[in-house]
Amino acid sequence: MMLASVFVCAHAQAPANDNDNRPRARDIGLISGVLSPGKLNAITDVNGVLVGQTTLNKGDDIRTGVTAILPHAGNLFKEKVAAAVYVGNGFGKLMGSTQISELGEIETPILLTGTLNVPRVADALLDWMLALPGNEDVRSINAVVGETNDGQLNDLRGRHVGQEQVFAALKSAGNGPVEEGAVGAGTGTEAFGFKGGIGTSSRVVPESAGGYTVGVLVQTNFGGVLTMNGAPVGKELGRYYLKEAIEGKKVSAHVGNGALTLTKHDPIQLDHVSDRADGSIMMIVATDAPLGSRNLERLAKRAMLGLARTGSPATNGSGDYVIAFSTAPESRINSSEAIRETKVLGNNAMSPLFLATVEATEEAIYNSLLKATTTTGRDGRVVEALPIDKTVEILKKYGAVK
Amino acid sequence: MMLASVFVCAHAQAPANDNDNRPRARDIGLISGVLSPGKLNAITDVNGVLVGQTTLNKGDDIRTGVTAILPHAGNLFKEKVAAAVYVGNGFGKLMGSTQISELGEIETPILLTGTLNVPRVADALLDWMLALPGNEDVRSINAVVGETNDGQLNDLRGRHVGQEQVFAALKSAGNGPVEEGAVGAGTGTEAFGFKGGIGTSSRVVPESAGGYTVGVLVQTNFGGVLTMNGAPVGKELGRYYLKEAIEGKKVSAHVGNGALTLTKHDPIQLDHVSDRADGSIMMIVATDAPLGSRNLERLAKRAMLGLARTGSPATNGSGDYVIAFSTAPESRINSSEAIRETKVLGNNAMSPLFLATVEATEEAIYNSLLKATTTTGRDGRVVEALPIDKTVEILKKYGAVK
Amino acid sequence: MMLASVFVCAHAQAPANDNDNRPRARDIGLISGVLSPGKLNAITDVNGVLVGQTTLNKGDDIRTGVTAILPHAGNLFKEKVAAAVYVGNGFGKLMGSTQISELGEIETPILLTGTLNVPRVADALLDWMLALPGNEDVRSINAVVGETNDGQLNDLRGRHVGQEQVFAALKSAGNGPVEEGAVGAGTGTEAFGFKGGIGTSSRVVPESAGGYTVGVLVQTNFGGVLTMNGAPVGKELGRYYLKEAIEGKKVSAHVGNGALTLTKHDPIQLDHVSDRADGSIMMIVATDAPLGSRNLERLAKRAMLGLARTGSPATNGSGDYVIAFSTAPESRINSSEAIRETKVLGNNAMSPLFLATVEATEEAIYNSLLKATTTTGRDGRVVEALPIDKTVEILKKYGAVK
Amino acid sequence: MMLASVFVCAHAQAPANDNDNRPRARDIGLISGVLSPGKLNAITDVNGVLVGQTTLNKGDDIRTGVTAILPHAGNLFKEKVAAAVYVGNGFGKLMGSTQISELGEIETPILLTGTLNVPRVADALLDWMLALPGNEDVRSINAVVGETNDGQLNDLRGRHVGQEQVFAALKSAGNGPVEEGAVGAGTGTEAFGFKGGIGTSSRVVPESAGGYTVGVLVQTNFGGVLTMNGAPVGKELGRYYLKEAIEGKKVSAHVGNGALTLTKHDPIQLDHVSDRADGSIMMIVATDAPLGSRNLERLAKRAMLGLARTGSPATNGSGDYVIAFSTAPESRINSSEAIRETKVLGNNAMSPLFLATVEATEEAIYNSLLKATTTTGRDGRVVEALPIDKTVEILKKYGAVK
Repeated sequence: MMLASVFVCAHAQAPANDNDNRPRARDIGLISGVLSPGKLNAITDVNGVLVGQTTLNKGDDIRTGVTAILPHAGNLFKEKVAAAVYVGNGFGKLMGSTQISELGEIETPILLTGTLNVPRVADALLDWMLALPGNEDVRSINAVVGETNDGQLNDLRGRHVGQEQVFAALKSAGNGPVEEGAVGAGTGTEAFGFKGGIGTSSRVVPESAGGYTVGVLVQTNFGGVLTMNGAPVGKELGRYYLKEAIEGKKVSAHVGNGALTLTKHDPIQLDHVSDRADGSIMMIVATDAPLGSRNLERLAKRAMLGLARTGSPATNGSGDYVIAFSTAPESRINSSEAIRETKVLGNNAMSPLFLATVEATEEAIYNSLLKATTTTGRDGRVVEALPIDKTVEILKKYGAVK
Repeated sequence: MMLASVFVCAHAQAPANDNDNRPRARDIGLISGVLSPGKLNAITDVNGVLVGQTTLNKGDDIRTGVTAILPHAGNLFKEKVAAAVYVGNGFGKLMGSTQISELGEIETPILLTGTLNVPRVADALLDWMLALPGNEDVRSINAVVGETNDGQLNDLRGRHVGQEQVFAALKSAGNGPVEEGAVGAGTGTEAFGFKGGIGTSSRVVPESAGGYTVGVLVQTNFGGVLTMNGAPVGKELGRYYLKEAIEGKKVSAHVGNGALTLTKHDPIQLDHVSDRADGSIMMIVATDAPLGSRNLERLAKRAMLGLARTGSPATNGSGDYVIAFSTAPESRINSSEAIRETKVLGNNAMSPLFLATVEATEEAIYNSLLKATTTTGRDGRVVEALPIDKTVEILKKYGAVK
Repeated sequence: MMLASVFVCAHAQAPANDNDNRPRARDIGLISGVLSPGKLNAITDVNGVLVGQTTLNKGDDIRTGVTAILPHAGNLFKEKVAAAVYVGNGFGKLMGSTQISELGEIETPILLTGTLNVPRVADALLDWMLALPGNEDVRSINAVVGETNDGQLNDLRGRHVGQEQVFAALKSAGNGPVEEGAVGAGTGTEAFGFKGGIGTSSRVVPESAGGYTVGVLVQTNFGGVLTMNGAPVGKELGRYYLKEAIEGKKVSAHVGNGALTLTKHDPIQLDHVSDRADGSIMMIVATDAPLGSRNLERLAKRAMLGLARTGSPATNGSGDYVIAFSTAPESRINSSEAIRETKVLGNNAMSPLFLATVEATEEAIYNSLLKATTTTGRDGRVVEALPIDKTVEILKKYGAVK
Repeated sequence: MMLASVFVCAHAQAPANDNDNRPRARDIGLISGVLSPGKLNAITDVNGVLVGQTTLNKGDDIRTGVTAILPHAGNLFKEKVAAAVYVGNGFGKLMGSTQISELGEIETPILLTGTLNVPRVADALLDWMLALPGNEDVRSINAVVGETNDGQLNDLRGRHVGQEQVFAALKSAGNGPVEEGAVGAGTGTEAFGFKGGIGTSSRVVPESAGGYTVGVLVQTNFGGVLTMNGAPVGKELGRYYLKEAIEGKKVSAHVGNGALTLTKHDPIQLDHVSDRADGSIMMIVATDAPLGSRNLERLAKRAMLGLARTGSPATNGSGDYVIAFSTAPESRINSSEAIRETKVLGNNAMSPLFLATVEATEEAIYNSLLKATTTTGRDGRVVEALPIDKTVEILKKYGAVK
């Protein structure tokens, strides 16, 4: 995948790419939890949600992109959606969080990209929003842009994502299957020492619990001690956080993402950086349940529990953020209304949605790892894909697959 | 264990009781994570920490108690310790949280008990503190008392824990092994549909990562879909949250702990309430690392990740709280000092402690379940202990034990 | 007012007492802000709100009491009200805050008392709630009890407020005028170096802004540099925070409420402790506007702005808490409902309510000071009332009264 | 001041401009509070702090700029400073807040600008930081950029502030007097219906309270009911929030900054929009006291109290943010240190600093109003300066000036 020429690809529905030769979790029998997924097992199972992505593979050292999640296809500024943010660990550059929390609503698509690209992507999102019919007089827009640090593989300092890539992602957004792995904002990311990327999953709660759908999309770029349905995949593959320190090897400090991780000195040799832990994860949670902002914040918090089940301790340098929103018609907000009639789910009906969020987040992370292909980038660095055969072997050994 | 007469037992070091016939996690080869535990594999591995408990088994319907955790053996009001609180899910009655957060310190022992007992236990803690030599002029004390709801087995409305039990627990506090299972504040609790209780565990981070110890003590009374090192114990035992709803059975609403859980009507028949999820968990995290209150709050948040690994989605009715404190001499606070010279660990050295917290919390929860004995209480209700043989069988099937 | 015998007085509607010889703010032409008050200029102007108080003056050293605020006259556990808490400065012992924040609701009356009395008052509140018809099976109640430290005048260590006083306050609760000054939970408090106590005020927003009412009740026990409508009353009376330090006098440390305040050594000589600043304030905000918990939290935050206008810098040792709730029928919460149809005011309609909260809080504080009478208590300590004549003179000098 | 040509002006020390013909608060005897200011009565009184500004007046409709506050003159990424953020009201687009809160530190200069300019200014700040010697390998930078909405006078949708203006502000940063009024990020702002802008002030606490300095810089663009030292300037000038609604006039909804304000229809007629309240305020608080992030957050909260004293109710559409940092050598943070020896001020020594923050914020706001000149901008809109003569007259009437 060493490309000499520009490769910009925006895609609403998953086109063929290397990631497609790899399985999703359920393809290998890896089933998290007890609830059933929706039809696509994707965030797009939530009625109205659209996803569009632009993958930017350019030359030897540009491995980045943008992923757009739209709560609905209309003008979000005019028809805002109830929303919340939860900061699991705030070593990150998410834009727009304070206004979401204060007003309990989102008024733009949610964009994900690489760390230093955030301002350029946000500026492009403003371009997009300002140009929408009906927004001619708008002078205040709360652009929501999240990130993880793809600087391991990508020339992040070059900030290569701008209006072209953002518009391509927004224009291509669709409600079908979501491409996963080394695509969009996940093009250059790394998780548990393997190639990470974009992953998605969904859950439908039983009819007697409301029958609502929860969908999750993640951008994975973090570390820890990988377990899959409890199977100790990271340990078995000999690559996990603190491995060398635990084995008593002398480790020197390595600054990754601006953070000291107690790993070996040379970050290029993958076999040596098996315990690299820092990075980040962006988690987007959508539901069609009619929720107000307080219960959406509670829902968002549960995504951290799903993350925990994959083996992350939310390391210091990890920006672990969750954005949750509702697509229910009752949860739409038109700012010109002084009083809004609405329906909201009671606190007591939240638990099934909490479980759905945990399960969908866990599986979305597995999908991001399983689908992502080995990627070579900046300075010849290679981040290997999770080896499917060995992984399946380990999962079988631990009864983690059916 | 149906007692006709009063049975009050306060114990610093674990005496013989029914719980003692049951194994801790490591006794059956159930080892969570990659770090090593301390000598006792208990919160008392953290230098200076003491634990004392009073178990109150009285008549047919009193199944409650109190557990005391002391950051050090001195007058805590005069020598406060740096501390933080994290609220995972705030359906609970923890006293003292706002002052801990504001001032970053704890000035009393931490007491755990049953929900409606909190005021009486807090009043007794004030009795204790006001009477300490040196506190004669003190007129403001921030009593820290947490709880979970033992009302399933216990006559909680009777509020049977008072000064006698509190003083007994405080007086008996010691730094040795901690009794686990159906003791102290865990006497009447339930977790994952089985008997829960008190559990503890610890981790020591590698020397190259600082060599610090993290110890955790939990009071378990919550639900979800139990997994142990990933092994689906809850599913295999046919008892997990939402089981009946998932199986399409018509479920009626049951109010437990004031919360609607979508379970079957009759809460007494244990085989029917297998999916009961609400309840709560108190998690106390101690460390000898020199941390300020901000990094202690971050540490506290990681306990929720350990909880997640056991299968809790932090249901609506669950009061999931974490209190973290440091016993390092540098983290002691004397209010009369205007300026304090101190040492603090940098943000960048936190990740190993985060991992330690996740692992110790997970194992402490397993210990609480494994050690707790079948208990009969209020109105003849029986909460069965986790069946050891069957559980070990399941764990073996999934390679979850060594 | 040195009483040799017990004097317990519970009163729904204001009976004659010493406080009654003193004016409210508007009686002397002191009018805060631009909005009009409700009929009673009290929290009871908000439809449904009841207030009851018990004043406990006993012997030489008991100067305390309890103030109860009921969002409505029914069983609050069955019909909860939307609510929120805001912690301005968390040096305090408010019980119940985390559950209010998590669930966005209050399920008991709100009780105010002296610091160390909180557990006993909370226990009595549980007695009350458990005994209400319909609550026979309830095993989880989130008692809400706030406090300020009346230890300057009161034998606070004796914790003299219990079930008798709590029940008397609850039984006497009414919707008429609220007695102010040295009554109820304000019997022994002190503010700006003068006698503080209970105060209340209300505002009605214009019809075109919704016509809603906001009512505030405060328990004042804090310090700072008193200004009244901007007039520098504290400076003119020679009593304000940091006065002596500013004048270059050597000050030794004095521990008040457990906090170091840079005041003179001897806390008994009132003329010397004029700059005592620590203490606390509890602020209760009620409205009939249909608000969800998020906007109630925003409303609560505005009470701090009203406090600021009186001259408080929210000193370290001050527990400055706000509890806000809505009495609108649409904001009632019945836990057994899985889905709730409701109406909520939009974010954009909040500003007039914010202004109302600021103004009513400011005036409630003035009322608490103006109405409170000179009180002698523990160890012969005297806290003088704000001198009305001198104060009016100052206010006139600065055009602060009409 | 209708300029036909580009006028870009960057200035470390105050050059002559129209603002200079207007007085600061103390020039007219308007003295807030009881503490003394520092030498310059500016944020630059805090040792090490530098301020630089670029004013962008261009053509008929560009009235904007950038203000840079540097905690010290070195490479902030290498030598971070302890810091905190407090969100008074989160209707705003502040970038960088979550990482400041998580890590308790700032690693770039703080830039202020107009709302929609934030991404471009942040991108320019990244340009600046990436190019600093020593930052060649840095791939994660938490750019801190705040804003208020200058869209009333400025072609905000055009986003005219970019690298040129940002670099000019940073290069010109100095430690002398700070230019105030309609300059830098305050070029196009409005407060209380009058021209707002940049203002600054400082306070020194008495020697016996530590002798520390607190400096505040504000960018004012908000509304309410203006009082100056309590004098009802807004009422006397007939221009305050809700005036027309209070007077019973029929008001139609006007969307300003995306928010419904209950004002008259036509926003151009200044005499009609006297009650416009929305907008925002950015408040930067610097101190040389050695504080950790927790106490810096508490300090930040006090700036809201200073804001309250000027008459703001923190309206819905107002983004009211405070960033506080310490310049004390003990509060510098070098990320490569695993353990940091430090000194921190105790909680009990905070109150004098709290008072200093309240007073300096209040006066900084007055300075921003007094110094700002009448400005004409977009579509011929005119925002009048606060009339000095009338204001002084009112202040004298109320004894608010000496």
